Amino acid sequence: MNQNKPNGRQIGWERLDTHYPYEYPLFRIRQDRLRLPDGQETDYAYMENPGAVWIVPLTTDGQLVLIRQYRYAVDAWCWEVPAGGLHDHDGSPESLARRELAEEVGGVCDELIYVGWHYAGCSIQNEVCHVFLARGVRLDREPQREPGETIEVHVTPLDEALALARGGHIKDGKSALALLLCEPYLKER
Amino acid sequence: MNQNKPNGRQIGWERLDTHYPYEYPLFRIRQDRLRLPDGQETDYAYMENPGAVWIVPLTTDGQLVLIRQYRYAVDAWCWEVPAGGLHDHDGSPESLARRELAEEVGGVCDELIYVGWHYAGCSIQNEVCHVFLARGVRLDREPQREPGETIEVHVTPLDEALALARGGHIKDGKSALALLLCEPYLKER
Repeated sequence: MNQNKPNGRQIGWERLDTHYPYEYPLFRIRQDRLRLPDGQETDYAYMENPGAVWIVPLTTDGQLVLIRQYRYAVDAWCWEVPAGGLHDHDGSPESLARRELAEEVGGVCDELIYVGWHYAGCSIQNEVCHVFLARGVRLDREPQREPGETIEVHVTPLDEALALARGGHIKDGKSALALLLCEPYLKER
Repeated sequence: MNQNKPNGRQIGWERLDTHYPYEYPLFRIRQDRLRLPDGQETDYAYMENPGAVWIVPLTTDGQLVLIRQYRYAVDAWCWEVPAGGLHDHDGSPESLARRELAEEVGGVCDELIYVGWHYAGCSIQNEVCHVFLARGVRLDREPQREPGETIEVHVTPLDEALALARGGHIKDGKSALALLLCEPYLKER
């Protein structure tokens, strides 16, 4: 999962040491020892993972496929769009997007558009989030969910789904942002 | 920083054990041992922190205050809005929002509006992100930045800032979402 990139040279920091005090299948913690320009030394720790994809699925009849998923870390059911991490995927973000669309909601699409990427939270993580719009989606396959995935599928009228995101009702921030970043593409139908 | 909340009971999981294999001032890693409904045992680990605030500052002359900040975790300069974590703050999210507005960009505001909250990423974190719109902002104080904060202040025309967010050019996802969630409030001026 590594890129050994951060070194702080851009602003005159010097990286003295890197180690990984915690490793888990989905992420690991990286802790660097740094020397700042004034000579002081400090530690900088953050969560490192190889990135993930979010897919906004637009059906052939112009509706959006939202999911409602139980999330243990917040002990709540969250409205989301299909998503998945690159930690257990050998191919490209695009091929992972197709895989997650099939596995989580049983979907296939006519066209997959790369909308863009952003950092999940650039102070304590290095995760890159890739956002895709899937057009011409048909939910005609059987979902293949992983153990521990508890998901309901909700096909939702386009305007209603966008209003949920805009109004702050999609509590998973990355799903809300994925929907809002797709809005310009959805309006050009 | 703890709430000992997640237990999985909502979907029939049983929490057998909780420990914290890594602690850092800004976050810690929580690892739970769980028994799933089929009797299998598994580990679930995630990043735990007490939440953070994002502030979208609208100046008295109707412009938005963006910042450009060096972020070590991604070794890049990121466009963002002012923000800060509750890990070193005793008061409310609102009082932290006022503090960060002053410290990061030297700003004070006439009015602070609570726009809403979302989860940063509910699969591997429990972080709650609070979004505020600050109206009537004046940048007439001296910023009081923490060591390691390398920040440029960019007062940006409203439409330009929103277009940057909508177009995926604000690479810090939480700042982009904060801007887009404020958009309905900004348009009602």
